[in-house]
Amino acid sequence: MPTPQTGERPRVIVVGGGFGGQEVVRRLKDAPVDVTLVDRRNYHLFQPLLYQVATAELAPSNIAFPLRRALRKQKNAQVALVEVTGVDLADKTVGTQRAAVGYDYLVLATGATQSYFGHDEFKQFAPGMKTLDDAIEIRRRLLIAFEEAEWEADDASRRAKLTFVVVGGGPTGVELAGAIMETASRSLPKDFRFVDTKTARVILVQSADRLLRTWPEAMGERVLRDLEKIGVEVWLNSRVTSVDASGVVIGERRMPAENVFWAAGVQGQPVAAELGVELDRAGRVVVGPDMSIAGHPEVFVIGDAAHAVDAKTGEPVPGVAQGAIQAGRFVAQIIRSDLKGVDPKERPAFGYKDKGSMATIGRGKAVVSVGRFNYGGFIGWLSWSVLHLSFLVGFQTKLFVSLSWFRNFFFADRRVRLITGDPTTRVKEPRGAMLVNKEPSDER
Amino acid sequence: MPTPQTGERPRVIVVGGGFGGQEVVRRLKDAPVDVTLVDRRNYHLFQPLLYQVATAELAPSNIAFPLRRALRKQKNAQVALVEVTGVDLADKTVGTQRAAVGYDYLVLATGATQSYFGHDEFKQFAPGMKTLDDAIEIRRRLLIAFEEAEWEADDASRRAKLTFVVVGGGPTGVELAGAIMETASRSLPKDFRFVDTKTARVILVQSADRLLRTWPEAMGERVLRDLEKIGVEVWLNSRVTSVDASGVVIGERRMPAENVFWAAGVQGQPVAAELGVELDRAGRVVVGPDMSIAGHPEVFVIGDAAHAVDAKTGEPVPGVAQGAIQAGRFVAQIIRSDLKGVDPKERPAFGYKDKGSMATIGRGKAVVSVGRFNYGGFIGWLSWSVLHLSFLVGFQTKLFVSLSWFRNFFFADRRVRLITGDPTTRVKEPRGAMLVNKEPSDER
Repeated sequence: MPTPQTGERPRVIVVGGGFGGQEVVRRLKDAPVDVTLVDRRNYHLFQPLLYQVATAELAPSNIAFPLRRALRKQKNAQVALVEVTGVDLADKTVGTQRAAVGYDYLVLATGATQSYFGHDEFKQFAPGMKTLDDAIEIRRRLLIAFEEAEWEADDASRRAKLTFVVVGGGPTGVELAGAIMETASRSLPKDFRFVDTKTARVILVQSADRLLRTWPEAMGERVLRDLEKIGVEVWLNSRVTSVDASGVVIGERRMPAENVFWAAGVQGQPVAAELGVELDRAGRVVVGPDMSIAGHPEVFVIGDAAHAVDAKTGEPVPGVAQGAIQAGRFVAQIIRSDLKGVDPKERPAFGYKDKGSMATIGRGKAVVSVGRFNYGGFIGWLSWSVLHLSFLVGFQTKLFVSLSWFRNFFFADRRVRLITGDPTTRVKEPRGAMLVNKEPSDER
Repeated sequence: MPTPQTGERPRVIVVGGGFGGQEVVRRLKDAPVDVTLVDRRNYHLFQPLLYQVATAELAPSNIAFPLRRALRKQKNAQVALVEVTGVDLADKTVGTQRAAVGYDYLVLATGATQSYFGHDEFKQFAPGMKTLDDAIEIRRRLLIAFEEAEWEADDASRRAKLTFVVVGGGPTGVELAGAIMETASRSLPKDFRFVDTKTARVILVQSADRLLRTWPEAMGERVLRDLEKIGVEVWLNSRVTSVDASGVVIGERRMPAENVFWAAGVQGQPVAAELGVELDRAGRVVVGPDMSIAGHPEVFVIGDAAHAVDAKTGEPVPGVAQGAIQAGRFVAQIIRSDLKGVDPKERPAFGYKDKGSMATIGRGKAVVSVGRFNYGGFIGWLSWSVLHLSFLVGFQTKLFVSLSWFRNFFFADRRVRLITGDPTTRVKEPRGAMLVNKEPSDER
């Protein structure tokens, strides 16, 4: 292993190249430290647009940017593509699949994984919405569902193939459900000869009594109306208690549905959760007002991996990009102050600035909540588009994404309708009757 | 299964949506037939640019176009995403994973698979270059190789990780080897801190005594010079006799090389090969001058799946896009004539028109051979670019691809550097020492 600890400079290890981790690294650009960004993926994922990859509107490369490329010019930063296996707080080392690495400062920005609330067996039937591979898998199943329906003579079976259940009424679930409905009702109808893709049912299952639970109440109601207007069925106060290859059980009721996508819960990643410090119910690390963990002022946890509290309101910092970015900036500043000799006891407390929330629901519809302003409709959609475009990296990406949105708006066109991986079976386990005479295809 | 055989109209089944298959379907647009295009993939793959996906320059969706979208407006055509399992010539039915389908005319345009010349055990160590999944897998291994080299302290191990062996000196091998060298020497150097990516070795292994064996001799020599100029080692008269996770044996000599990519041989797909008719050495179906098989004037085989002969020269029709397209056009015309009552015995014989060949070797370098004109250099590269762009489908794709080429030409930038699937191990079987403490990651 190379030893970039070139003597004098303190070493900062940042685990996770998401919004928070990348912000820490960038903000340490001219600081007298050596920074190592460790991630098991070689790209930063722009998660807010993941649902558009899942629904074949954007290509994976439109929302994923190589970490090395992003940090090319930052001389004091290096990237390591490794999986972190554990942290030794006493020894100040991070264990990886390759070697242990020492740190002076450690920032865990490891994010969250999908939580199946103790039912990990649901996962094979209901892929989540956290990673690029998740989105590619959902895209594969979504596209195969229509292909299978086209060949299905039995009415009940066809209905089950064209029933899409999205679990979870937060922003991800709302946007995914809306985009699936758009795909079925606007993009695909002319491409099929026998099946009417407009007959697809999209059911959004939400355990709470309203959508977007953490947003202003009016927004949840507006989103509900917008979704119902385009044909999505929203089931409030409903809980999925079982999932298998042919359907879900919602409460007591069994619903034949061959496509179930999970956008319900999140939980902290194991690495942060295994530090041996206090966790909240979702497995997130409880951090102090300076984002460090108890007894270790040199170890910080930020973003979705952390349970942090806003100093002013006492409210938990929400698990959104802005929460991670602001925490990243804050922690970088603390490290800089430390290095200048400021007493760690005099660190400031983190204050979260709510910059607002946004979600799209299909063509030209979005809800936006900024401060006391709540609005939606086309103006909401325009704000959403401009803001999200501005965050994407690179002229070419911005251009491509805007063209894709333009095409989708006017022509309902989704260009990235590629079924990669195994094209012949939707769920990985072949389900008896459907497949005859079929060798297991290639190993991917 | 839907029964689109709406009574009177003869049914044409075309198996395979590549260059040849798609051409047949299109040319039957206004003919009084019902056409079903059957493919196990839902997209047409623009194979000539596959190596640019493998080397992270283009996104998969840039070179893959949904078949349904392409045929949306052709009323007499439908698409079926199924795997064909066999053909019953006597019964005139095609067996699929779902159901058997009857035909009046059958066109097999099933293409070719990679041939490992009887050594299928090489495949896991040396992915081929025929499918989109192949290219994504090569991209994954290529990118991981540099990531691993960055962490490798041992000189010999690092050299093995940075040695890329491309097997096969045809157009695919030549283009892939050139693009890998460009990636290592121009795109990546600034992104790595510890390893000098320019030290990568790219070795192109060719069994014949020159590259591009089927092209004019001067072209093979020019390509050889161009490749050597950018640093690719070309080993002529060399045969790979063994491949494993850590190297290859070339002739008698063992070469430590952790990245081996196979662009050597092709063989006909099983479906066509199992018709029970005469095959050539590469498993391609020997067809008559009208592209039909012996005794079955209603069954045609075209493109890479067929061994056809040019009526004028007596030479085999080459396995290139133009061969498939021209055969597709020819067969569609024969079917039309048949339907007009022309006696099958009076069918014309297929004549192949050579429109020339082209290959690129890195930045601003290409060889072009059109009729008696052989040229290369920048003008060659420009012709190559314009021609390939013109064949891509859709304004947005053309725009995106030209921008990508522009960026790569001037800034050596490769945007699509995404390691999808398992990011932590290059070869699927974890290789002991390298991985510690590692759970098998997600199932994709």
